[in-house]
Amino acid sequence: MPAPEPSHAAVVDLLGLVALGELLAFERMAVDARLAPDLRRRAALGEMAAAEIANYRRLADRLTALGMRPDEAMAPYVGPLQAYHDSTEPRDWAEAVTKAYVGDAVTDDFVREIAGALAEPDRRLVLDVLHDSSYADFALAEIRAAVGSDPRVAGRLSMWARRLVGEALSQAGRVAAAERGAFTALGARGGLDVPGLFQRLTVAHAERMTAAGLNN
Amino acid sequence: MPAPEPSHAAVVDLLGLVALGELLAFERMAVDARLAPDLRRRAALGEMAAAEIANYRRLADRLTALGMRPDEAMAPYVGPLQAYHDSTEPRDWAEAVTKAYVGDAVTDDFVREIAGALAEPDRRLVLDVLHDSSYADFALAEIRAAVGSDPRVAGRLSMWARRLVGEALSQAGRVAAAERGAFTALGARGGLDVPGLFQRLTVAHAERMTAAGLNN
Repeated sequence: MPAPEPSHAAVVDLLGLVALGELLAFERMAVDARLAPDLRRRAALGEMAAAEIANYRRLADRLTALGMRPDEAMAPYVGPLQAYHDSTEPRDWAEAVTKAYVGDAVTDDFVREIAGALAEPDRRLVLDVLHDSSYADFALAEIRAAVGSDPRVAGRLSMWARRLVGEALSQAGRVAAAERGAFTALGARGGLDVPGLFQRLTVAHAERMTAAGLNN
Repeated sequence: MPAPEPSHAAVVDLLGLVALGELLAFERMAVDARLAPDLRRRAALGEMAAAEIANYRRLADRLTALGMRPDEAMAPYVGPLQAYHDSTEPRDWAEAVTKAYVGDAVTDDFVREIAGALAEPDRRLVLDVLHDSSYADFALAEIRAAVGSDPRVAGRLSMWARRLVGEALSQAGRVAAAERGAFTALGARGGLDVPGLFQRLTVAHAERMTAAGLNN
């Protein structure tokens, strides 16, 4: 017997969370682009940012189609997501691309997990907002170049990545407290395994750090 | 007899200028979006910003097709365009939308003028990067709402708009000094009438200020 469809409220909750994540990631990357050492890299991070706001628009349109105002669906998460970005302001280009790399990848892992708990057309929609791998490739190449040009940078960026994950986990607790039952509802129907989710996200993050030449 | 085609160097010069204008307008709007009083407006300015970077990408691709690195084509204009943005940092949402409204419109007027001096496919390309009128409508509605809610705001925003134009004109002189002969070359073939251009831009700007409920 297939699991019952997730409730309308749970879907709205999750889409609102993902939509706000896209909107704030857009702003942060666009702001951080000014740290780029040259115009080519500055434009590249700007284009990564623009991809986020295009995804935001698709999620906002779906929320509207579901009869929910996007800003209302996002409102419960503004506090924790904004706090994450405010507490992890990059000081230079290497920190900015590391933040984009780590943040995009963890977001994608999270989005893939919740996609499994959704019915169509929302499952397809959230899978469509996964990041284009060309952006991760760009960020990864920038991190490797920074580490390669100065071995001490590896230590500094490794610490920075740990801080990013620490702040994200700390705010994830606030997100879980703010959501209005979506995770529990989806978990109860077997669609979202929250403790397993965090473990899988952490393992995948550690593998990516190794790939980037950083220590976990 | 039709005028001769503009030289390759002149086209590259003009496309580089427009491309950098788009890239910096993107960043500025994305940064200013954080001044929005609510998430709906914040996302709206973010989407205006994203339209700029999509245009940047089209211009950069054309420069590459012409055998020019986009960052090299843009480099001569970084000083004046960055100085314009640095000297006109909005302090609040009303100033941010006024800057977007004034800046987009003047840019569009300028782009329409230079389109007349270009041959295809560059003429079509620069006409395609003109702003969607829905964004101007949004900004205009926001300015009118700000003015309507407090009549003193009209005076402050009128002064602000005059400062925007003053700073832009001041940097336009530096742009003219930085460009490598494109304006002169296009002017010489009758395609770009620089003194008439500035007069037309100023008149059109004054009409828009009146439409927004501001004094010129």
